[in-house]
Amino acid sequence: MASPEIETLTQALARLPGLGPRSARRAVLHLLKKREAAMAPLLRALEAVNERLVTCHVCGNVDTTDPCTICADPRRDARLLCVVEEVADLWALDRARLFPGRFHVLGGRLSALEGVRPEDLAIDSLIRRVAAGGIDEVVLAMNATLEGQTTAHYIAERIESFPVRLTQLAHGLPVGGELDYLDEGTLAQALRARRPVS
Amino acid sequence: MASPEIETLTQALARLPGLGPRSARRAVLHLLKKREAAMAPLLRALEAVNERLVTCHVCGNVDTTDPCTICADPRRDARLLCVVEEVADLWALDRARLFPGRFHVLGGRLSALEGVRPEDLAIDSLIRRVAAGGIDEVVLAMNATLEGQTTAHYIAERIESFPVRLTQLAHGLPVGGELDYLDEGTLAQALRARRPVS
Repeated sequence: MASPEIETLTQALARLPGLGPRSARRAVLHLLKKREAAMAPLLRALEAVNERLVTCHVCGNVDTTDPCTICADPRRDARLLCVVEEVADLWALDRARLFPGRFHVLGGRLSALEGVRPEDLAIDSLIRRVAAGGIDEVVLAMNATLEGQTTAHYIAERIESFPVRLTQLAHGLPVGGELDYLDEGTLAQALRARRPVS
Repeated sequence: MASPEIETLTQALARLPGLGPRSARRAVLHLLKKREAAMAPLLRALEAVNERLVTCHVCGNVDTTDPCTICADPRRDARLLCVVEEVADLWALDRARLFPGRFHVLGGRLSALEGVRPEDLAIDSLIRRVAAGGIDEVVLAMNATLEGQTTAHYIAERIESFPVRLTQLAHGLPVGGELDYLDEGTLAQALRARRPVS
């Protein structure tokens, strides 16, 4: 039988999204077989993240500094604020290097099913940032899911009394998307938002 | 953009079997969101495994002691030796608590495709254990795969000159197996190894 240390590690890994008990066990075995090549680097990386990373109290990003690099960067346009569900969404938008402004991470999405209410998300702090002024445009960059759009609607209602421009990401065909393979919802959105050929 | 610490952790996790770059990123995010509930336990578990676990020099099992609990247990039948491919197979057999003897872990299987040769596995140490005497039966408990069976054949050839009984796990219908859903190979094995009704 595996030792209690291995059981504990297996259980800790199995709780990660994407890993179940079986694959966690396989992962532990891999770590045990490759102690120098896999276990040591993973341990060091985990320690580094655990020791050095903090959550930015302004935007909710995770970084080695608080405020984070993005919030502290004077070249970023402070009048532009992009609201996202998760830190991963912030990273995805920032990887594309297309957004010159700052971010606000909600930490999730409203969900009746999972019991996530407005007070569970960083919505009040978003309203405070908007109320403090200095922001011209708030881009709602929620996921194009039912829950993401519900969250966007809720935030739009809370923000509409403030003098800022409220926008949201465009919906339509993804780049490389073939009509034949796209769902009806996407096609309907693309058709509804059709634009004159320039 | 994610900090270098996060990138390093993502890469370390992505190298685990069962996790790719995307799911590793999701796992890192989960760890960052649940620092107390997920990151701290994982870190502690990994440290415990890394510090306390050693490979048994006798059988190749992974345990907190060397020789391992199984090799050191006087109630285990030393005359019975079960050869398995991986530590996980040892655990699986030991979980079932059906085998009263000791084990020998090969650390893999012969594979022309992956370039695994006999000298890459713990086969010489197995031969030395058998040659040292005191063993009545060697059970070859390789996987019922082509590579597992090739490995079993190779080991059988190396051991047959010694005065031990060589056996292998039975092949046939798994418990709960329905003929309709089983592959032809399994059905052929089950038919070939058919036994008189007792």
